[in-house]
This record gives sequence, C-alpha cells and structure tokens, in this order.
Amino acid sequence: MHKIALLAAAFTVSATAAMAAPRTDEPIQPIEPAKVKDAGLVELGKKLYFDPRLSKSGFISCNSCHNLSMGGTDNLKTSIGHNWNKGPINAPTVLNSSLNLAQFWDGRALTLQDQAGGPIANPGEMASTHTLAISVLQSIPAYVAEYKKVFGTDKVSIDGVTKAIAAFEETLVTPNSRFDKWLKGDNKALTKQELAGYELFKDSGCTACHNGAAAGGNTFQKMGVVEPYKSTSTAEGRVAVTKEEADRFYFKVPTLRNVEMTYPYFHDGEAETMSEAVDTMGRIQLGRKFSAEENASIVAFLKTLTGDQPSFMLPILPPSNEKTPQPEPFN
Amino acid sequence: MHKIALLAAAFTVSATAAMAAPRTDEPIQPIEPAKVKDAGLVELGKKLYFDPRLSKSGFISCNSCHNLSMGGTDNLKTSIGHNWNKGPINAPTVLNSSLNLAQFWDGRALTLQDQAGGPIANPGEMASTHTLAISVLQSIPAYVAEYKKVFGTDKVSIDGVTKAIAAFEETLVTPNSRFDKWLKGDNKALTKQELAGYELFKDSGCTACHNGAAAGGNTFQKMGVVEPYKSTSTAEGRVAVTKEEADRFYFKVPTLRNVEMTYPYFHDGEAETMSEAVDTMGRIQLGRKFSAEENASIVAFLKTLTGDQPSFMLPILPPSNEKTPQPEPFN
Repeated sequence: MHKIALLAAAFTVSATAAMAAPRTDEPIQPIEPAKVKDAGLVELGKKLYFDPRLSKSGFISCNSCHNLSMGGTDNLKTSIGHNWNKGPINAPTVLNSSLNLAQFWDGRALTLQDQAGGPIANPGEMASTHTLAISVLQSIPAYVAEYKKVFGTDKVSIDGVTKAIAAFEETLVTPNSRFDKWLKGDNKALTKQELAGYELFKDSGCTACHNGAAAGGNTFQKMGVVEPYKSTSTAEGRVAVTKEEADRFYFKVPTLRNVEMTYPYFHDGEAETMSEAVDTMGRIQLGRKFSAEENASIVAFLKTLTGDQPSFMLPILPPSNEKTPQPEPFN
Repeated sequence: MHKIALLAAAFTVSATAAMAAPRTDEPIQPIEPAKVKDAGLVELGKKLYFDPRLSKSGFISCNSCHNLSMGGTDNLKTSIGHNWNKGPINAPTVLNSSLNLAQFWDGRALTLQDQAGGPIANPGEMASTHTLAISVLQSIPAYVAEYKKVFGTDKVSIDGVTKAIAAFEETLVTPNSRFDKWLKGDNKALTKQELAGYELFKDSGCTACHNGAAAGGNTFQKMGVVEPYKSTSTAEGRVAVTKEEADRFYFKVPTLRNVEMTYPYFHDGEAETMSEAVDTMGRIQLGRKFSAEENASIVAFLKTLTGDQPSFMLPILPPSNEKTPQPEPFN
C-alpha cells in the first residue's frame, strides 16, 4: 500500500508538471471536433464535393481548388478555372471555413451553403449552371436514391445540393494542433521558440485580427492600415458587396489555422512564404519591422496551428448513363 | 441428433443449389485481390499519384485523368492537359492496369513504371520535366524522409518516383464483381438476362479479344476488322511503336472490367454508351448486328463486371516550402 501511494503521488507530480489548467483567456481558442448531425447528408455532400460533373467540363470539382490533400486550397497564387481561366483571387481554404463570419474574401456569401452554389455557375470557375448541374445529378439513379434518403424527395434541387456540400464542409475542421494541445494545458506541446513566437504575435497586435478559434475569419479588416498594400490584383474587397467606399480594400481576415499548408498568402496570393507574409503584415498593418529572429519565431508559432487534417475514404461516384448531359470541356 | 442431421442435410442441399464448382474453364477468369508486398512503397506512391505538384501548373495529378472516384478515368472523350490542352486520345482506366500486356493504347510503355513517367513530362499533359518534378519532391523534407524509409536513400530519383506510383497502381484491382462471384460458383450472382448476355458475348466471338482476368488488356487487335472504323482521331495505334505497316490501327484491347464506369469508349472516346460500343463492336469487328434485346443483354452482362473499387483514405500531402520550385500555371 505504501509503495502504491508513493507511486501515485509521483504520478500526480509529473502530471502536474506536464499539464496546466486550460488556457481559456487566450485570444485564440481551440478548434473543436465536428459534430456530425446527419451522416447521410454529409456523405452525399462529400460525393458532390468530389464530383467534377458539377462543372461544364466534367473536369473541375470543388476539390480541384479546395484540395483536401493540400490544406483545402490549390496552393496556387490564383486558381485555374474552366478553359484554364486565370482566376482573380487566391482560393481560401475550406478547412474550418464553417467558423468564418461569411464566405469569400469579400464576404459576399453569408453561409457555406450560399458559397457552394457560386463556383458551380461562375463562367470562370466551373462554368456550369445550376439547371445543368441538377440535370446531371437527376439523371443518375444512385444519386437520386441517396438524395431521396436524405431529403425525402427524388426531385434534386440546387438548394439540397448546396446544403449537402455545406454539411460536408462543416466537418472539415482541424482540431488537435500542437497549439490547441498547449491551450488545453499541455505544457510540453510547444517549444520555447514557438511560445516566444506566440507571445510576440500577441504583443505585436496580430491577435487584434487573428483571434478566435480560427485565428481569423471573424472580421473584415483593411489590407494596408499603416501603409497601402501594393498589388496588381483588381480585387477591392468588401466594397464590392456593401458599395460603401469605407469598405474599399477591406477583406475577410483569413484563418491562420493550417497556414503552413495554405500557401501562397493574401487575397492575391502574392506572399509565397509564411516569412514573407509575416514581414508584410508587420509592415503594412502594424508599422513594425520584425527582425529575422522574430520573424522565425512567429513562423515557428504559426506552424503549430496545423491540426488533424480531415480523414476519410475517397468517395466513389455513381456513373453517368445515356440520359446524363455530356460534359463539354472544349465548347 | 436426428433433428440436427436433418438440418445439416437440408443445408447441404440448399448450399448445392446456390453454389457450383468454380467455373475455371470460362474465357474470363476472376480478378484476385492485390497482394501488397511493400506497404510503405504503396503509400508513397499513393501520395505521388494524388500530387499535382508533379505537373508544371501544380494543378494536374495522375488522379486528374485517372480519377479513382470515377473508375480510374476522367469520363471525358479525350483528356484535358496543361493549359486546357485537348488530348489526342481517351484516357484508359488505371484500374486493373497491372494486368495489361503493356500500357497506353499503343502499348508504348511495357510496364506501369515506364508509363508513369510519360504524362509528367508530356507538354500536353502535366507539362513538367522529370528534373523539375524531382526538384519539387527533393525540396520537401517529409517526402524525402518517406522516400528514404522506402528506398534507403535521400536522393529522390524519377526511377524511385515511378516505381512507387506503379506499386500503388498495382493495388488498384477490382475483385468481387458479381460476374466473379458467379465464376467462383455462386449461381445466384447473375440474373437470367445477364447470363444470357454472357452466353451471347461468348457465342458472338467477343471473348476472342476480351478474355483473361481483365476481359481484355492482353492483346493488340485491329480496330475495324470487318469494316473500317471511321474516326477523326489521328491515333494510328501500334504502328507508331513498331513502325510496321501491319500494325496500323492495332490498339491494345481495353479491359471490360468496370466498363460501366469507364465511359466513353474506344481510343477516341466516340462511343458514349455501352450500348453504342456493343453495337459498333458487333458491326466492325464481328460483322454482326445485335438486336435491341441482344444488345441489352450484353450490356446487362457488362455491368456485372464492376468490382470493388479501390478503397483508401484520401492522402494528405506534405506542404511545399521556400525551397520548392513554384508552380507555373500560366507560363
């Protein structure tokens, strides 16, 4: 008994050293795992997310530009659309996008469901129409059967399709990053450099915008506070939605979750590396020049924000048939 | 005891009715599950197969045109390549391609490994070079570490890369189709119509070319035996490899495994449906006009060749970094 009591005491001491109370007063808070309410809806949404037949060409799916093998982005400066169209803006990550206050860089879609319908019908992206996309799905018995199981009707609609895609996207959260482990009290989760980087990140004012569970995504902010941001991009941000001149160059603050995977950075994709992005942000948003050492420590901290990537079986899509409208990649 | 003996006898009778001896003398034989020899090599190959950074644009991966959600094809007449290039030929399925006597429609690659290097460096497909693709991978520490575990060296080479891709592709077999269950003795696996279709398929001479485990893939045959095949495609088949005039319009016989999923058909992708393909094959290869009923029964049989699709987790790719050559989608 005596020995066991001693061992128990030793264990308690060691656990205390490694674990602290959850750090609930930090400006960034942990990502929580997704709670799936309707597994059938999510599974249907996953298929649709991977289905290039939602595009006119039959070649581009949601996953083409929001690639779940690559941090939910395409890792390109701006995206490639139908007929190799050069997109006007950097594809934001779909990971943790359910935490955003709105979707797209200018927030023109209030919900993931609203967002999902956009690229399908955008001539420079998937170049289909909602009518055509629905005709394609309606022609495929296995899709109709799955749709009926989920929605109780065999009449496929864009509302149901985008609802399913959004439900799948809501599962694409990335908990269990090392930073979250530290937030939850694991003292050993971060190195000294990473912690120093986080302290500097806070002290410099980065958390004024990059806060909350997603470390961003919850406000629109001006790109270029202290000095103007120079870009060849024609994107003007939030003004395009509100028509308020005061919103010019206001963009949704991007999440920093998984930022190591979501390069290149900014709405124009002009910052190729985290180091470059940190340097530019310091200069134009905070009026601050980070030293090489400071920059490296912030980058080290940023890399601790990579969480568990969505983990699932590649979906198998039901085949088209003679009733399915043909893809038109070259028309 | 008496009751048990009766039950056992009843069970035997019922089992006999449902199960026959394996049908080992049929011209088509079952697909066997893949035996993975080196799981690490396969896993590396899977990542590479899904990695669009093997292309110049950073947008096109092996999976773009040999999409494992869609029967290992792109379901397009001819494929889309770099800069939306219109490919000259229909992308053959990667499923069961390890059973082919050679790769590509004209058999110009003898092995899957030889094949894998082709599209990467083809200006109309992935438009990279082997040198560039290797530089990209060599710059990514997680790839180099995984490569070293598999090959014992941290010097990435195209030989190793294509070897890994081929090892992954060797796992992409599709056993357990209903037809294979029937071949293995399950009398209830096929309907009367499907069986009738198979009998007609054999009796008409289809199995002269579509035989073996893959129901094809094991010979080159002339497209247009009884009457010439009319096509706008410039592909001339095997003659491009052998330079023998006798090989003009000889193509590798495509596998019929999963044919329901691998539409459209023929080297030029001109047959949109199985029904159309059966009709054309009957006419130009066999000099035979199938009735609507005959055509339907053969199509019903063909649909029984869909096997278990490869089932695996979507791979997560290690991120690029400041040393990684940038993708050049628009140069």
